[in-house]
Amino acid sequence: MNKEFLIQVHNRVKPSIHRTPVLSSMLINEMVGANVFFKCENFQKMGAFKMRGAANAISVLSEAEKQKGVITHSSGNFAQALSLAAKKAGIPAYIVMPKNAPQVKKDAVKSYDGIIIESESTAEAREAMAETVRLEKGATFIHPSNNDDVIHGQGTAAIELLDEHPELDYIFTPVGGGGLIAGTALAAKYFSNHCKVVGTEPKNVDDAYRSLKSGKIQFNLNGATTIADGLRTFLGDRNFPIIKEHVDSIIRVEEHEIIEAMKLIWERMKIVIEPSSAVAFAAVLKNKESYKNKSVGIIISGGNVDVTNLPF
Amino acid sequence: MNKEFLIQVHNRVKPSIHRTPVLSSMLINEMVGANVFFKCENFQKMGAFKMRGAANAISVLSEAEKQKGVITHSSGNFAQALSLAAKKAGIPAYIVMPKNAPQVKKDAVKSYDGIIIESESTAEAREAMAETVRLEKGATFIHPSNNDDVIHGQGTAAIELLDEHPELDYIFTPVGGGGLIAGTALAAKYFSNHCKVVGTEPKNVDDAYRSLKSGKIQFNLNGATTIADGLRTFLGDRNFPIIKEHVDSIIRVEEHEIIEAMKLIWERMKIVIEPSSAVAFAAVLKNKESYKNKSVGIIISGGNVDVTNLPF
Repeated sequence: MNKEFLIQVHNRVKPSIHRTPVLSSMLINEMVGANVFFKCENFQKMGAFKMRGAANAISVLSEAEKQKGVITHSSGNFAQALSLAAKKAGIPAYIVMPKNAPQVKKDAVKSYDGIIIESESTAEAREAMAETVRLEKGATFIHPSNNDDVIHGQGTAAIELLDEHPELDYIFTPVGGGGLIAGTALAAKYFSNHCKVVGTEPKNVDDAYRSLKSGKIQFNLNGATTIADGLRTFLGDRNFPIIKEHVDSIIRVEEHEIIEAMKLIWERMKIVIEPSSAVAFAAVLKNKESYKNKSVGIIISGGNVDVTNLPF
Repeated sequence: MNKEFLIQVHNRVKPSIHRTPVLSSMLINEMVGANVFFKCENFQKMGAFKMRGAANAISVLSEAEKQKGVITHSSGNFAQALSLAAKKAGIPAYIVMPKNAPQVKKDAVKSYDGIIIESESTAEAREAMAETVRLEKGATFIHPSNNDDVIHGQGTAAIELLDEHPELDYIFTPVGGGGLIAGTALAAKYFSNHCKVVGTEPKNVDDAYRSLKSGKIQFNLNGATTIADGLRTFLGDRNFPIIKEHVDSIIRVEEHEIIEAMKLIWERMKIVIEPSSAVAFAAVLKNKESYKNKSVGIIISGGNVDVTNLPF
């Protein structure tokens, strides 16, 4: 791993992604007492940063592998991302989704020509089904977050952010499965001399916080819920070592803080973001005394949210 | 009036405004069958294009006039815009607002140091109060839409849009008091050889449509309502001649079409826009057969909306 390698990753994914804008707001800067820069992956293709990792993972496949397609298990943004990235590459994407996944999520995958395979809703059932299909189709399994190429792809958002704002003292990201924060940590290491990476989590699903504290991957209680439902997933053996080595800290926030931060961004920035994206800004707001006059980047992870069912 | 004059207007307002981004969406282009470019004035300072006209109107005042401040009557975006533009110029802004205006609108004006003067809610009472204060303070009255400098300032959004997309065949704007569409029509005349300007209105308050048809300024029925409440105002003697001469046509849309267009933009573009902005996109959607393979610009007029009280 070195800077040149990550530049190559970026060059490979560029044709498949948007270079998303970096927005800022005078009012928010005054409110926080810092210079805050929002990297708007809600404007990314399919509405989330996951497009970057999916595109990179497909770009490294051989022609023979490509022909047999790719497979993942996800009911969230990665399902859509892999479907769209595969469609652009002209190859099939098999998406294992729980039977009880919302119709709107199934429709989104279908709109990108993803081939849905239903499973029971436990993690074990999803993984077993993915393995069955992988063997049957010869497709390449691509984990949504615990895959080196996915991790490197997700890091390209921070590469672009640091390219525009090399002065950043911090980059905040939400932490779900760990792909985004691990990729961001690598980007900060190789594209900045001093920028620290801070992870942020809902207190209700603070597995990454506990993992970093204990040094071992921790899990969330079955049935633990949060409005930032994309962040209920846990870290893996590919991303946790990177996180342990390069992430400064993980900050936890309450549900009401997530909702307030989300509303503030909608009202002040005039952008539609999903609750997971608001977790990072909530953490900055909550600890603003620590970032006085600093330059703080925030990865707005996505904007796929049901606008008819908002928490405010 | 000539191109050089409008370039000077643009140069004068530049320090007071954001150059807002022009966004587009592959999905929306496929849906419409045209190349659609959204000029995002929801990202403008104070959240609406009105900042442009307010800044220009203040920029042309003499030092003596500036010292005595400015006055307008508005309970909408222009009240905030004039307050903020005046604050930036270091001069007082007196804002006549109806007593019964929502507290959130009064708070917004106060947040920009606007000095609120309450009146009864009829148009006559507001105008009388504005005249009283004007005489008392010696402040310069600046009408929200029927003022040459305001009209020219509002046109700078279209100048920027045509600078980035000189190929545009059409620019669509909402029509309220007529300042935006008149300014846009002048910009199209001097900054494009072929771009037509189309106005759009809620059918419930179609005064501009009827004005263009009859050749005389028409009004709306007392109590006529629309979700796009910023568009209930009527044209004036400064902007109507420009509209008559340079606007191609005015398209009317139904309330449900406005709401559907608004929801589509929130969901697909991931941006927060107010209902008035959605009127223009609703008109494009409704008549998409007429714009097949054309390049269509849309001025997204603003994003000041109560996110806790949405129509979907």
